[in-house]
Amino acid sequence: MRPVAVIGAGKTPFGAFPDRDLRSLAVEAGQKCLKDAHVAPEQVEAFYLGNFSGPAFVGQNHLAPYVSTALGITGVPATRIEAACASSGSAFFHAWSEVASGISDVVMVVGVEKMTSQSTGRVSEILAEAGDCSGEMKAGNTFASLFAMIARRHMHDYGTKKEHLASVAVKNHANGALNPDAHMRKVITLEQAMNGKPIADPLNIYDCSLISDGAAAVILAPLERASYFTEKPVRVLGIAQASDFVALDQKEDITTFPAVGRAGQKAYKMAGVTPAEIQFAELHDCFTIAEIVASEDLGFVKKGEGGPYAFEGCTRLSGPRPINTSGGLKAKGHPVGATGVAQICDLMLQIRGEAGERQVARHSLGLAQNLGGSGATCVVTILGAA
Amino acid sequence: MRPVAVIGAGKTPFGAFPDRDLRSLAVEAGQKCLKDAHVAPEQVEAFYLGNFSGPAFVGQNHLAPYVSTALGITGVPATRIEAACASSGSAFFHAWSEVASGISDVVMVVGVEKMTSQSTGRVSEILAEAGDCSGEMKAGNTFASLFAMIARRHMHDYGTKKEHLASVAVKNHANGALNPDAHMRKVITLEQAMNGKPIADPLNIYDCSLISDGAAAVILAPLERASYFTEKPVRVLGIAQASDFVALDQKEDITTFPAVGRAGQKAYKMAGVTPAEIQFAELHDCFTIAEIVASEDLGFVKKGEGGPYAFEGCTRLSGPRPINTSGGLKAKGHPVGATGVAQICDLMLQIRGEAGERQVARHSLGLAQNLGGSGATCVVTILGAA
Repeated sequence: MRPVAVIGAGKTPFGAFPDRDLRSLAVEAGQKCLKDAHVAPEQVEAFYLGNFSGPAFVGQNHLAPYVSTALGITGVPATRIEAACASSGSAFFHAWSEVASGISDVVMVVGVEKMTSQSTGRVSEILAEAGDCSGEMKAGNTFASLFAMIARRHMHDYGTKKEHLASVAVKNHANGALNPDAHMRKVITLEQAMNGKPIADPLNIYDCSLISDGAAAVILAPLERASYFTEKPVRVLGIAQASDFVALDQKEDITTFPAVGRAGQKAYKMAGVTPAEIQFAELHDCFTIAEIVASEDLGFVKKGEGGPYAFEGCTRLSGPRPINTSGGLKAKGHPVGATGVAQICDLMLQIRGEAGERQVARHSLGLAQNLGGSGATCVVTILGAA
Repeated sequence: MRPVAVIGAGKTPFGAFPDRDLRSLAVEAGQKCLKDAHVAPEQVEAFYLGNFSGPAFVGQNHLAPYVSTALGITGVPATRIEAACASSGSAFFHAWSEVASGISDVVMVVGVEKMTSQSTGRVSEILAEAGDCSGEMKAGNTFASLFAMIARRHMHDYGTKKEHLASVAVKNHANGALNPDAHMRKVITLEQAMNGKPIADPLNIYDCSLISDGAAAVILAPLERASYFTEKPVRVLGIAQASDFVALDQKEDITTFPAVGRAGQKAYKMAGVTPAEIQFAELHDCFTIAEIVASEDLGFVKKGEGGPYAFEGCTRLSGPRPINTSGGLKAKGHPVGATGVAQICDLMLQIRGEAGERQVARHSLGLAQNLGGSGATCVVTILGAA
């Protein structure tokens, strides 16, 4: 396997855009990315699209060639990957794999989701299709209620408190307020975060990520060719995808995501780094409890200590290990299929030193963790300065 | 790239199975395949699922880990690929790529679709999502009407006749009647095929493939390790995936599928064979005209001669180049996401000499062509005796 670099990135703002369709968002991100990477469409040798539920949200399937041809990329393999909220993380993993193995030199990945549309009334139902519809969802669960059970059990087993969850929301809102492309740029207090409208106890509205429209794109190339395209390549040091059961009731312990641990360990091993060396991270905070669990499963802290770790400010922009400097899914927004690639774009901004007001001090080694469903798919990527 | 073999295959019968759900079909095919390949679930290093529209047909998304964990395959990357009717052909391509490049040794691919369900009344609408919903489908087209336009233009440009189309249906029905796993085992006459219930003129009901439930699975391994698992490995000699515009109105000529030509040329080059050397083939006959066009685009005959080629019997079981010995999508059935892998299974049966009553005389070199939508995705695979 040869070293791989990300040679360019492009994103749309995340938000609710009633006048935009799925393809125009994907094309905007793709064109920005081609420009950033100094790559012409005809140089792209393979195309991956990460998308969760275009058919249900906007009535369009077969999305990879639908988007690639609109970018002027024709003829080459164009493949859509669906892995719930980890769709574009998985697409990025397969694109990396294609370049690392020497099959292709220039591979593009776009992640996109258009969620605020005529189907908005069905969003919870469409998202539920990422869980076990024949079992847990049929019994009346939504993703909020699944993560509420995870939160409650985490509280029971480890003494995690509502204040801990709320502190994740406060931090991510503060970071999002500094991100011009974030869906929600609103600073909130701990008191506000503690007293939001109830969704699925103990989770309230401030514990839940946003329903957003948006797209993100990156281009990968062999590290040895990266300088041909850009002065600012970022290196993929470690990456892995792992899987687990879709239904929570098949898991031995719902306070941990084995797929996160597995993917993390493989990625650390490939990168030759320890969890302690990771300087900053974008973690999949679909709910506040998910960021806490991920910080434990990735070995940033011991099991059960994720709550206090966040509450004490360790993960703030100014803390020893900033998490979700973009605002995370909570404030940046969560257009499901775009999230995995957007995390990569956000790591790149930090590593390149282009994160503006939210730039962190130590920014040469970052980690992205993209979760599908309630943990059945996870992709962990470690990026570093090239 | 190292040589790759298919070391095992498994399929469910294709048909309408009101009592079966998507997962039970996928698991049945997967278990048969594991047994045929003498592979234990824990030996599988990566899992691919080809599925077109599980969310719309059965309300379940995130299908790769949903199926893999039910097969006892846990932890490893489990990835769903969607490429319309070429979903599992594309999944097979990516699995091949993973083994050929040396990333993994034992990779499983399952293709599945459950189409006859509570959503049956919406089948045409769900299938239409594989076309351009913002354009051609919004204007009232269905896939039958798109292929009807292709057929009419092919008749206009090349003198193709209804008898030619009908002869494809007659042949595929005859082959399907010999296939115990086929959805429709009914011999029809040319007169019947000419006078079926009109669907979209010039196509009638006998020109259209079936709406089916079913699953198919294969396992790939490096050729050098194949004999460790099986005495009957089949070698992947050439394979390629290509893309094109989703909407017909963006194409210069609707009587040809450029993605088929491109994928075919790359696959021939990789295999080091000419079209004339291909002994038998499974072509994507979603409509009778599609088999005729594919036989031209793959170079079996010159452009425009596909109709007479079929009509004169050249593609019958006893002809010089049998096409769709399984009965094809027309008679074997077309559970969309299963079709690409099912074609591979059908080639394997012939190459292994296990095709029973429909066994062809020359069976050491076969080709499968899997088409997505009206040609935006195509995967061509050439298999040979190992």
